[in-house]
Amino acid sequence: MAKVHPMTTPAAGAAAAGRARSGGRAGRRAARAAEAPPRAPFIHRRIATFDVLSAEGLEQIEAHADEILKETGMEFRGDPEILDIFREARADVQGERVRFEPGMCRTLITATAPSEIVQHARNPDNSVTLGGANTVLAPGWGPPFIHNLDEGRRYATYDDFCRLIRIHQMIPDYHHSGGVVVEPVDLPANKRHLDMLYAHLRWSDRALFGALIGEQRAQDSVNMAKIVFGDGFVGDNCCLYAVSNTNAPLVMDQNMSGSLKVYARNNQVVAVTPWTLTGAMSPCTAAGTLAQVLAEALAGLALVQLINPRAPCMMGTFASTMSMQSGAPTFGTPESGLIVLAAGQLARRLGVPFHTVGSLSASKLPDGQAMAEGMFGLTMAVLAGANFINHAGGWLEGGLVHGFEKSILDADSCGKLRVFCEGLDLSSEAFAMDAIREVGPGAHYLGSAHTQRHFATAMYRAPSADNNSYEQWLAEGGLDAAQRANRTWKTLLAEYEDPGLDPTIDEALKDYIARRKAEEPDRNYY
Amino acid sequence: MAKVHPMTTPAAGAAAAGRARSGGRAGRRAARAAEAPPRAPFIHRRIATFDVLSAEGLEQIEAHADEILKETGMEFRGDPEILDIFREARADVQGERVRFEPGMCRTLITATAPSEIVQHARNPDNSVTLGGANTVLAPGWGPPFIHNLDEGRRYATYDDFCRLIRIHQMIPDYHHSGGVVVEPVDLPANKRHLDMLYAHLRWSDRALFGALIGEQRAQDSVNMAKIVFGDGFVGDNCCLYAVSNTNAPLVMDQNMSGSLKVYARNNQVVAVTPWTLTGAMSPCTAAGTLAQVLAEALAGLALVQLINPRAPCMMGTFASTMSMQSGAPTFGTPESGLIVLAAGQLARRLGVPFHTVGSLSASKLPDGQAMAEGMFGLTMAVLAGANFINHAGGWLEGGLVHGFEKSILDADSCGKLRVFCEGLDLSSEAFAMDAIREVGPGAHYLGSAHTQRHFATAMYRAPSADNNSYEQWLAEGGLDAAQRANRTWKTLLAEYEDPGLDPTIDEALKDYIARRKAEEPDRNYY
Repeated sequence: MAKVHPMTTPAAGAAAAGRARSGGRAGRRAARAAEAPPRAPFIHRRIATFDVLSAEGLEQIEAHADEILKETGMEFRGDPEILDIFREARADVQGERVRFEPGMCRTLITATAPSEIVQHARNPDNSVTLGGANTVLAPGWGPPFIHNLDEGRRYATYDDFCRLIRIHQMIPDYHHSGGVVVEPVDLPANKRHLDMLYAHLRWSDRALFGALIGEQRAQDSVNMAKIVFGDGFVGDNCCLYAVSNTNAPLVMDQNMSGSLKVYARNNQVVAVTPWTLTGAMSPCTAAGTLAQVLAEALAGLALVQLINPRAPCMMGTFASTMSMQSGAPTFGTPESGLIVLAAGQLARRLGVPFHTVGSLSASKLPDGQAMAEGMFGLTMAVLAGANFINHAGGWLEGGLVHGFEKSILDADSCGKLRVFCEGLDLSSEAFAMDAIREVGPGAHYLGSAHTQRHFATAMYRAPSADNNSYEQWLAEGGLDAAQRANRTWKTLLAEYEDPGLDPTIDEALKDYIARRKAEEPDRNYY
Repeated sequence: MAKVHPMTTPAAGAAAAGRARSGGRAGRRAARAAEAPPRAPFIHRRIATFDVLSAEGLEQIEAHADEILKETGMEFRGDPEILDIFREARADVQGERVRFEPGMCRTLITATAPSEIVQHARNPDNSVTLGGANTVLAPGWGPPFIHNLDEGRRYATYDDFCRLIRIHQMIPDYHHSGGVVVEPVDLPANKRHLDMLYAHLRWSDRALFGALIGEQRAQDSVNMAKIVFGDGFVGDNCCLYAVSNTNAPLVMDQNMSGSLKVYARNNQVVAVTPWTLTGAMSPCTAAGTLAQVLAEALAGLALVQLINPRAPCMMGTFASTMSMQSGAPTFGTPESGLIVLAAGQLARRLGVPFHTVGSLSASKLPDGQAMAEGMFGLTMAVLAGANFINHAGGWLEGGLVHGFEKSILDADSCGKLRVFCEGLDLSSEAFAMDAIREVGPGAHYLGSAHTQRHFATAMYRAPSADNNSYEQWLAEGGLDAAQRANRTWKTLLAEYEDPGLDPTIDEALKDYIARRKAEEPDRNYY
């Protein structure tokens, strides 16, 4: 009997299990292809966004953002070229401080920024559309540590990096390969971006991030994308996703403006994303945080459009909260939910796609805290109408740890929200009046013709969830969710399907990396 | 130093910890009273509901419900009095089958059913208002088993029942004492409702459920409420909450109609709640399930109003899903989320308060699955605008198990949603423009005057969450969420504050129970 793929929903799996025998990996792949529901490369929302603010409330936030940009302004540090660009656009530039007349940034953005962007993947089936009713989910970003049940918590390596890319590539409910899924601390800090880009381009065929920090790394990313996608294609088409974080409050440094310039000039998408720890890097109130976030985003997005009108860009927000008593960052909180919902509304009024963050948690383990926080945060991001959700899976310990099991469990939440976003089918077939007539009072629907027509695809069931009886669960080892997820990621790794890469391109990438690595000595700092 | 109460949010706790020494339990109570945020006996929503259907979609469901009631109708089994009531109202009664002309039930309901209901608690501070923008959260109902980390899973006893009531009474984010928090299987099945009612009335001073199954048990509940609240008060005022589950599809049996009659005649609130296992007890599609649920609710609510016009009643829904492959019930699913959101809209159009269910899970343990499923379900119920959410905490194993640790962890989710429902404060103080001016680019807000004014109350932090550093967490034992929750419920039990009960009333309750128990032999079936 064909083995059920661990990240295929049981609906498809059970159907596959009923098929004729087909041996080995090829057989399993064929069974999956034949039985799995049509796989979309991203979520297309058929339900409304959840709006927490009235138009009047949004106008208040916009007015306060304008006030901040005029009164306090924003500093662009260490990058005289940026200051010249703003000076030329008639912003008020004094030293590194740039102030804007009310409405100036918004006018610049709405005049030329596109509302929808296609980011190409090297497998065209995996290209994603950013904007409108679409939501793209990417795995976690940035942790220097990994956690799994076998090894506990330890520093991450390049081997972990490649394993996570392979695992994620096998999970249909992640749509994007991401970027720094972990920091491979065994590689020199000044060169590891080359290895990371290579791993995404080699082991995944999904869309990916460019390197975020510094002009040179961004240029390396563009150069490597050109090797894979072709010189002419990159430049006219978006093949790299980049986030430009402001250093809240109200600063952008040359590392961020440096990469922003490269991506904007090459028509690669930049999500200008103020990252705030509410209470430390922004006021300890949601309204003040939203005004500051919008001010920073407006300045950054105006900069993109000044550098290259019509360059693709997105408004981002990453508003974490903190415990005002201990200073510890907190995640999946009600305030962060309210902020992301309001920020989504602000982005829609600005007419640019919206970027935010997903399944965050401060928990050290893939436990109840981790999943309650992650589920709430991801749900809020989806209800906010986010077009790109970074960190949709894997985050533990406030982003210090990428959890292998957490990544599997969060993928369940991603799948759940995919089905949720399909909304309610109100077709005549969905109303099932034939079944209700047929069954009548007090009988059951299991054998009805309507149920027979739909049982194979009806009802989402999360791949990692155990819904069996206690007795069956116990007989199967009595495992908790994390222990089951541990088995799942190992199976995914074992069954990893290499998307392949043209050997000429592979060689060219390796040559580029070798040349670049030879240009400077290894350093363990940026 | 005053010990911090384990279910006080750290905001209040830290403030309390900084106070002068005050010894013992009285001191702790005083510290809590002084420092805790003003405690509301229920959630008052300041945010919108999340509407997934247009008016047109809702009209379609209503039209299909009417079609079901006219064509197939509903059976009222074993209760000739109910059939007479319907016959008199000019419904089409044939045998036990009752059919209704389109619009008939709706007209009966909207003519007289109140839109808002006060359920009185014996402590008036804990009375709850059902309807409008209010949400009341009650603990889990019905499990024959308990689970905790010390004892694992075993049959529940009356001692568990009383312990859970005491624990819940100490948790501010549960607003209602509930009903059958577990089935005390050590007591005779035909008499245990008396002991359960006593335990709620004695150990909690919150609002409570009456017994649901059968006319006699409902009458016992009313009689015992009269002993506590006074003969005259009950009858004119709602002091008991009752759910009347239909036996989907399209049946109400005499156990349910029997208790419904007693509560309706005594002006005690009845939430008419079709319980469906979508795919078995209703069609395997959301639209068909919604049409059937609405049909059953309309018939039941019309019955309440025919028995006693203006009697308080609520539309309920408890639509679980199931795996169509294994037949296992599933919880926290996307389909159940969509159904509850739509059902909330239908209830608002009907003009009666809305009852539903919360933190459900099929997990056997208080793990990641349990909390992801519970968090999603509870969030959807709140976004649906539910006025009463049963099973807001504790459910494991599809309702077979009340988890002590799960109850604690779910209470965190309840608190999170309470703060979420407060929405965004857009006052001038919340915009914090003074702080943004004062701090300026690149500095931090920790020491700003605005932060000083607000740090004690800003930002919700879940009591059970660990947001500390890895090192601190490890030094404190490296506990997962369930292990911390295990400590919490033990502390709550140890610090349980008896609300007291007038000895005369206590004696009268005990006399009533003794008399009733003497009237029939013990039986281990209903």
